[in-house]
Amino acid sequence: MTDALDLADLVERIGLPDADAHAAGAARQARLTKPAGALGRLEELSLWLCSVQGACPPRPLDRVRVVLFAGDHGVARTAATSAYPPEVTAQMVLNFLAGGAAVNVLARQNGASVRVVDMAVDADYAELGAAVPDDVTRYRVRRSSGSIDREDALTREQAEEAFRAGLRIADEEVDSGADLLIPGDMGIGSTTPSAVLVGLLCGIDPARVVGRGTGIDDDTWMRKTAAVRDAMRRGRPLKGDSIGLLAAVGGADLAATTGFLLGAAARRTPVLLDGVVSCAAALVAHRIAFRSRAWWLAGTRSTEPAQRAALERLDLDPIVDYGLRLGEGTGALVALPILAAAGSTLREMATFDEAGVSDRES
Amino acid sequence: MTDALDLADLVERIGLPDADAHAAGAARQARLTKPAGALGRLEELSLWLCSVQGACPPRPLDRVRVVLFAGDHGVARTAATSAYPPEVTAQMVLNFLAGGAAVNVLARQNGASVRVVDMAVDADYAELGAAVPDDVTRYRVRRSSGSIDREDALTREQAEEAFRAGLRIADEEVDSGADLLIPGDMGIGSTTPSAVLVGLLCGIDPARVVGRGTGIDDDTWMRKTAAVRDAMRRGRPLKGDSIGLLAAVGGADLAATTGFLLGAAARRTPVLLDGVVSCAAALVAHRIAFRSRAWWLAGTRSTEPAQRAALERLDLDPIVDYGLRLGEGTGALVALPILAAAGSTLREMATFDEAGVSDRES
Repeated sequence: MTDALDLADLVERIGLPDADAHAAGAARQARLTKPAGALGRLEELSLWLCSVQGACPPRPLDRVRVVLFAGDHGVARTAATSAYPPEVTAQMVLNFLAGGAAVNVLARQNGASVRVVDMAVDADYAELGAAVPDDVTRYRVRRSSGSIDREDALTREQAEEAFRAGLRIADEEVDSGADLLIPGDMGIGSTTPSAVLVGLLCGIDPARVVGRGTGIDDDTWMRKTAAVRDAMRRGRPLKGDSIGLLAAVGGADLAATTGFLLGAAARRTPVLLDGVVSCAAALVAHRIAFRSRAWWLAGTRSTEPAQRAALERLDLDPIVDYGLRLGEGTGALVALPILAAAGSTLREMATFDEAGVSDRES
Repeated sequence: MTDALDLADLVERIGLPDADAHAAGAARQARLTKPAGALGRLEELSLWLCSVQGACPPRPLDRVRVVLFAGDHGVARTAATSAYPPEVTAQMVLNFLAGGAAVNVLARQNGASVRVVDMAVDADYAELGAAVPDDVTRYRVRRSSGSIDREDALTREQAEEAFRAGLRIADEEVDSGADLLIPGDMGIGSTTPSAVLVGLLCGIDPARVVGRGTGIDDDTWMRKTAAVRDAMRRGRPLKGDSIGLLAAVGGADLAATTGFLLGAAARRTPVLLDGVVSCAAALVAHRIAFRSRAWWLAGTRSTEPAQRAALERLDLDPIVDYGLRLGEGTGALVALPILAAAGSTLREMATFDEAGVSDRES
């Protein structure tokens, strides 16, 4: 908690995936009983799995873990940028813990598990009459955040603390055997700081980076865009100071997700990115350590313009383009079986020799 | 085998999916703990599942069955339209039975099973030293087919027999409890008759409907296009006689798949279409009974131009656009978990009331 955050050391610990395993995967792909290239993009995904696992064929994805970072955002209350009241964040945390949300359903369907981490939810669960495990609230750095259109979301110390929590959680998950990590998110108002971060780091005007979030009307969109414009003005001098930027115009959920993404890369663990919140954090993480990008795939293309812009900047072509805009990790989970299918074909298909099938006449 | 094929009776037995279940699905979607529309196209898929099952929420897809129709095509030998030798069809049948092909891997991954039906493979398995179960060869109507650029693929009797086999197999599968059917295909040369059928039924020139199949070079593409042009000329007078068309320029695998698709629709059983072969058969089936279309979704967009044209004509927007061009049922199987995810969210997610989550301020 107390020693200074050493980003240079973290950056140094992030390497690149295994090029030899990638090459071995390509050689194996060419021998499988199918025309070369006939599995389309599945083939490319299978090679990526080889490279991040350092293994050919790739191992099954047996322990996929969604870590859902929840937090409230002051700007949602002061500037009313969301279609939903801020109380929904805590209510949804309880819904996640009860297993009733979309992320729970999709995780169950894919044999994945969900961990909920409350970084800054604006609630006292006891007052709500709910018993929430200590594990969920252990890393909370504060309740809600400052309204980023006029004040810092967090102090620098809080931003560091949240970032460090994300790093530690990545370590915990990898130590527990996770072979693929998915950053989830929940927070009424969270698309506002996400749009600010993407607008600043991609150099995009507020009006072009603000979307409809949970489904806001025109008046709310105008308030949201004004808030994003004001926050971008506040954040612009901090573009070279990523932790300062997360403190000024981010939030504890975004800072933790950024740390989580870098922690996963440092531990050579692949990540499927989700919606606009995780992609905004990915942009910040990429700015801190550009090699981290090699450990990520994009699960989904969201309808949020900021998510699309972030993916474009990161040169990530999402697995699924399906009009999703829920977050929580759901976009990554919808894409997960396609990634798993890619791995299975490379691992389990017979080769021409094994099957006694004639290869093309060459 | 002997009584005349009564298409009018078949057409009459094909009804439309359940509009009430669709409406009940839409009402339930609106109460789930997420912003309306946030699950994008998954929401639309979930309503389709309600309508074809006549149930809200939809049941899990517990018994998905791939029926893979295999057959050789004379045109591949006489006009050399494929990159692979015709022997590969029989070799791949044995690979399917051994579980080593892409369709086997993807079926296992999705808990689906694969049935292989040899409609017209040009092989004597005993001569190849292979033991093939009677169940695989029971419906074979002949070995290979006439070269469609110059002669009929099948006699009318053979076409009827193959079509009827497809109908019967759909009945067998539904009687055995299948809740979703996937038509698979295997046959060196099969994209040639598929291109002919699509070219004729969509009114597209040969050069615009012929693709690279398994990966042919320019010379082979020119031979293939010439063969397609000649076959289209032969088939044009038969556009109003679907069985005659399948006999003249189709093949036993295509005729069986057409019967299979109509049989599934008559039994109110949903189908995920796959690549160009199943989509060409779907065009013919749609011409026989237009209501059949309501029971189908498209799994994938192939790189074959004929498949894209067929989907456009059928107004089917594929679930996955992934550059697949393998056939076998693989494109449908890659899309299957997304359809299953759609059903799971509608079935398992908590509603706002159940979870005590506030709905949007309206």
